Amino acid sequence: MTTPIYAKLAVIGCGLIGASVILAARAAGAVGEVAVADASADARRRIAALGFADSVTADPAEAVVDADLVVFAVPVMAMGEAARAAAPALKPGATVTDVGSVKGAVAEALANALPDTAFIVPGHPIAGTEQSGPDAGFAELFRRRWVILTPQARPNPQGQADAPYQAAVERLTGFWTALGSNVELMDAGHHDLVLAVTSHLPHLIAYTIVGAAADLEGVTRGEVMKYSAGGFRDFTRIAASDPTMWRDVFLTNKDAVLEVLGRFTEDLQAMSRAIRWGEGEKLFDQFSRTREIRRGIIAAGQESAEPNFGRDHREIPGEDPGEKADTKRK
Amino acid sequence: MTTPIYAKLAVIGCGLIGASVILAARAAGAVGEVAVADASADARRRIAALGFADSVTADPAEAVVDADLVVFAVPVMAMGEAARAAAPALKPGATVTDVGSVKGAVAEALANALPDTAFIVPGHPIAGTEQSGPDAGFAELFRRRWVILTPQARPNPQGQADAPYQAAVERLTGFWTALGSNVELMDAGHHDLVLAVTSHLPHLIAYTIVGAAADLEGVTRGEVMKYSAGGFRDFTRIAASDPTMWRDVFLTNKDAVLEVLGRFTEDLQAMSRAIRWGEGEKLFDQFSRTREIRRGIIAAGQESAEPNFGRDHREIPGEDPGEKADTKRK
Repeated sequence: MTTPIYAKLAVIGCGLIGASVILAARAAGAVGEVAVADASADARRRIAALGFADSVTADPAEAVVDADLVVFAVPVMAMGEAARAAAPALKPGATVTDVGSVKGAVAEALANALPDTAFIVPGHPIAGTEQSGPDAGFAELFRRRWVILTPQARPNPQGQADAPYQAAVERLTGFWTALGSNVELMDAGHHDLVLAVTSHLPHLIAYTIVGAAADLEGVTRGEVMKYSAGGFRDFTRIAASDPTMWRDVFLTNKDAVLEVLGRFTEDLQAMSRAIRWGEGEKLFDQFSRTREIRRGIIAAGQESAEPNFGRDHREIPGEDPGEKADTKRK
Repeated sequence: MTTPIYAKLAVIGCGLIGASVILAARAAGAVGEVAVADASADARRRIAALGFADSVTADPAEAVVDADLVVFAVPVMAMGEAARAAAPALKPGATVTDVGSVKGAVAEALANALPDTAFIVPGHPIAGTEQSGPDAGFAELFRRRWVILTPQARPNPQGQADAPYQAAVERLTGFWTALGSNVELMDAGHHDLVLAVTSHLPHLIAYTIVGAAADLEGVTRGEVMKYSAGGFRDFTRIAASDPTMWRDVFLTNKDAVLEVLGRFTEDLQAMSRAIRWGEGEKLFDQFSRTREIRRGIIAAGQESAEPNFGRDHREIPGEDPGEKADTKRK
């Protein structure tokens, strides 16, 4: 066995992502002891039953004692409160990161809540599933996925490069790399714009289209479900993501989301006009262009080329997926 | 071996759907002889190489000679021309159907092109993948998927129920059932509204969001591809669908598409306002509601409950999906 990168890891908030961080870190031998804090009694019971943590508590301060790496994995707007609760017990020189989908607001919340002795390196693994809770976690979630870190220029009275902080960033980079991820450093504001495009807007659109379809004159909800294989079901997957997490994302990344939404709306109006006026060539050109982008994503290793629309043909016939959903989605 | 439902099947246009119809019908023993007509020389070469048809020709009239079932599987706006080409050779009493995503326009085109001696039963299997061409076909595509048939009231001078036509509808229902599908009869206009919701609008939205993201100030195309696992990549799958097919869908189902697009746009504006004004509760309620719809789709057997966002964890590491994409997507 190699020496772990961090002797003690504390995870504050242990849902899909928190649990996956622990499972992946354990599988990679990247941590020694693991402490978990979670505000939900149900979640704590499940975490204890799953057995992947050495200790489980409701109190962030208890979990972070002696921790070398603290990962905040609560919804974005709960970060500040969780950090304030943990702050008094934080070991000087500990590295503190998070997994929030918005970086500007979280970086600010962590900096306000935590002492100067902590090395705060906000982070965001671009990985997840539509499921929630500790049971949904798995060790391979971050493999070949990108993790964006947004290190902050720390106040330094001497005006010198902050070598210990840089060392903390490098160590955290090594941690994520050990979990199978590719790490990229980025400015927090740029992160929030990029993710508004690749994640926040797609979720907003999916939530909207699924909501609109559920409540339409002339078409029943049963019909929408029955005939969903024509494209709609792909949106329902995204629209089944955690509501609290996503509410927080839209409230804390408002400007970037509204900016890209504005651009999308313009383009949608242009499409609408092309349909209204029967401009077939314009539609064909647009529809051809988007194929190239998918090819690029597959080439970048971020997607499989398997024909997933016909996803059923690899399932075991007779299996009842409905039942599985009930036990998994709580 | 049981007797085939149709002694001879002719498929006019043999892409993903046409090829899958043949493979599924062969697997079910639902047809005897199979003739194919395809306008593309490349496609004809691939069909001959794949060996699933008894004959391959460029001429629809040649393919339909003696056929008991003729399936038009060309893009919606090419149906009329293909039907006109086949009409002179059509056997009296043959059943003619199609697989187009729009039913009103296709029903009209077929009725105008074909003699009264044909039993025209327009149809639409709600199944497909994002891939195109005869190589993309597979026998299980229609299993547990819905097929909507839109039978037409045929002119009958005696004012009596048209028993032979009803028999043709029932036989075609039996054919799709043998291929593993559930069959539903519906009015063509209602079909076009339902599918505008569950298929056409989702495709339009996906094409638009992927196009907008590819061409945005401040975010490079490379960044969009790299960080696509946050939700965006699910849209690129739909947006990689066949451009000709989809152009035709939007041009021929204009009214229904613009109607549901109008409703979606209203809802999107409401979401935009909720974000702008920080109305967290409104967002949370909307995001919770959409989860139920997904559960309904899974319960209806139209989707798997597997956590597909994290789709990589079942792949063989080291596999190069990029290469596979190149050989499959032509």
